[in-house]
Amino acid sequence: VHEGTEERVDERHARVALNLLTEPGDPRVARLVAALGAQEVHARLLDDTDLDGVRSDVAARLAGLDPSGILAEAARMGVRFVVPGDPEWPDALDDLADVEPVQGMSGAPLGLWLRGPARLSEVCDRAVAVVGSRSATSYGAAVASDLAAHLSSADVSVVSGAAFGVDQAAHRGALAVRGRTVAVLACGVDRAYPAAHRDLLELLADEGLVVSELPPGSAPTRVRFLGRNRLIAALTQGTVVVEAAVRSGALNTAGWALRLNRIVMGVPGPVTSAASEGVHELLRLRGGQLVTRGSDVLELVSPAGSCLAPVRRAAPSPRDGLSPDQRVVLESVPLVRGAPPSSIARAAGLAEATVRAVLAELDRGGFVESRAGCWRQRPTSEPRRRLA
Amino acid sequence: VHEGTEERVDERHARVALNLLTEPGDPRVARLVAALGAQEVHARLLDDTDLDGVRSDVAARLAGLDPSGILAEAARMGVRFVVPGDPEWPDALDDLADVEPVQGMSGAPLGLWLRGPARLSEVCDRAVAVVGSRSATSYGAAVASDLAAHLSSADVSVVSGAAFGVDQAAHRGALAVRGRTVAVLACGVDRAYPAAHRDLLELLADEGLVVSELPPGSAPTRVRFLGRNRLIAALTQGTVVVEAAVRSGALNTAGWALRLNRIVMGVPGPVTSAASEGVHELLRLRGGQLVTRGSDVLELVSPAGSCLAPVRRAAPSPRDGLSPDQRVVLESVPLVRGAPPSSIARAAGLAEATVRAVLAELDRGGFVESRAGCWRQRPTSEPRRRLA
Repeated sequence: VHEGTEERVDERHARVALNLLTEPGDPRVARLVAALGAQEVHARLLDDTDLDGVRSDVAARLAGLDPSGILAEAARMGVRFVVPGDPEWPDALDDLADVEPVQGMSGAPLGLWLRGPARLSEVCDRAVAVVGSRSATSYGAAVASDLAAHLSSADVSVVSGAAFGVDQAAHRGALAVRGRTVAVLACGVDRAYPAAHRDLLELLADEGLVVSELPPGSAPTRVRFLGRNRLIAALTQGTVVVEAAVRSGALNTAGWALRLNRIVMGVPGPVTSAASEGVHELLRLRGGQLVTRGSDVLELVSPAGSCLAPVRRAAPSPRDGLSPDQRVVLESVPLVRGAPPSSIARAAGLAEATVRAVLAELDRGGFVESRAGCWRQRPTSEPRRRLA
Repeated sequence: VHEGTEERVDERHARVALNLLTEPGDPRVARLVAALGAQEVHARLLDDTDLDGVRSDVAARLAGLDPSGILAEAARMGVRFVVPGDPEWPDALDDLADVEPVQGMSGAPLGLWLRGPARLSEVCDRAVAVVGSRSATSYGAAVASDLAAHLSSADVSVVSGAAFGVDQAAHRGALAVRGRTVAVLACGVDRAYPAAHRDLLELLADEGLVVSELPPGSAPTRVRFLGRNRLIAALTQGTVVVEAAVRSGALNTAGWALRLNRIVMGVPGPVTSAASEGVHELLRLRGGQLVTRGSDVLELVSPAGSCLAPVRRAAPSPRDGLSPDQRVVLESVPLVRGAPPSSIARAAGLAEATVRAVLAELDRGGFVESRAGCWRQRPTSEPRRRLA
């Protein structure tokens, strides 16, 4: 017989306790909490005794925790813990409950630790993840930064992981235009990883938001990066991979985004650059969509038809102003050796008299020139460029 | 009443005469010839008299032509004229008959003028067009050349337009590996356009094939480039655009390839490069498929499953040899500040005794290090690189 239950803790405290006791993304914990509620799971674990009536190791550790004290200590550091049902909780995270485990990981988080003035639910209303290689090239860093600046200027939050390379460039691009940007970490929100980004993370905590599923003080581990990646994907409407080698963690984030039916995008680069190989594979084989600039991303993550990217046009050409007849005749005038109006008329499919009149107009416009009755196009480099 | 018909010429001579009299890609001519046959069209045009019994201008010009003499003269220059029904005629060209006119142009050619030792029908059995910007960057030229060399080495003919930039690089790449390469021109096969490519064209005529729909002596005009582009698309199983600005003629070729249900491919480049903008649009909006190397192209143009491109793999890592338990434990070891085995066991979800044993193994492998009973990952740049 066991000793009976402790005083029941409330939902938030139960989630804090379970969060401290378990690893992020453990599908068993997520399933139990989804089925029974965090309070009930907490109570049952606390009640757990083995055959001799001795408390299990888990129960003992759980009993030793002080959720209230932990929340109070976090609050002193400016850190809050949000759970489902809180106004700040983003419903988007619930999508994680329906995704099959990958590398043994799945499920909605028990709660999120937040540091910073932005409200998470508002941030997630319009948010895009910009992720990529830690060893980005200068090209990748520049593109990530421009992209983030463009998205921020359009009131889209830029979510990334505060890592070296693309992540850093994305956060900086957003900060540079006073945009909203959010770092999701694989360690406690009070820690700086990488250490060189301490200032960047402080700035994000001052102006944006730093998010983690892990309690304050937690160290980053490899599995925790994988769990973190699923949050980046879930918190956003789409993920853009800027540069990624074949085995890059950014592709793991993209994989989560695909499973969550988020929009997955990739920025192409030179096919000769190893830093773009993973992106090209994402685009070729995994259904990622090619984007080249912020407006392409906006078009894809916005309601259909509301944010169409402008069609690219070449610079206007003097030829644009030509009449249909002028255009046909000009296109039938040889480029190198001149031809008589009769031959040009044949090529243009027009009467020779018409062609003679039009050639005179084109001559005045500087498009053609004649010599001994034979006409050719004026050799300007500009129109030639666009020929074949 | 009219004077009666001339002696009827045979099909080949009728096609030569019509070819000399009309512009390539005139849909009216193609339709008439498809419906009546070239001999009948020839006869009717020759018969054409106006109300006063005077021969029309067209009939007079037709009567003045000497197809036999023209063919003989061409033969002296090493030029042959192939028509439907000839063993060398590629059936692929017949697909052009079913395509709606674009910019007033459509239809199968009346015949093709050829110069060079390769047999056109064999060339077209396995052929890919590699086209792109005249003002290619060094990146575009290098990629086009490598792609062409790879395709040629796999016995795929490389078809292009002998223009500056990508075309030239593609021909050169194929020639460098003694591959089969074909230039399709917008002027007579006896002419060099651009003039700077005279040597290249001579080499192609010596070792490969130079093709044109236009009779020898014809000058290049803008419309003739458009007509030429439809042949490049029709003669090949697929078209690869390597670099193309927004208004590039290579996109015109890609458009023909799309209408002909050929495979349309594009090589991405930096989004900051204007020379890649047109390719990215092709990939984003017009259904082009992204390719990064020759094997990607081979996979797409070959029968399904016969030529799968190898999956890219990252360089092998020492971590690849780890057992599942070793991997889980290593992934749970902190990266910066060390942690005791109990904490690592919690993160790994394994018994602490197991974790202690595995840590010792990992220590021997150089993956982890301990200090005062706390373990962290060995700071090597290599594993860190692949973290986030």
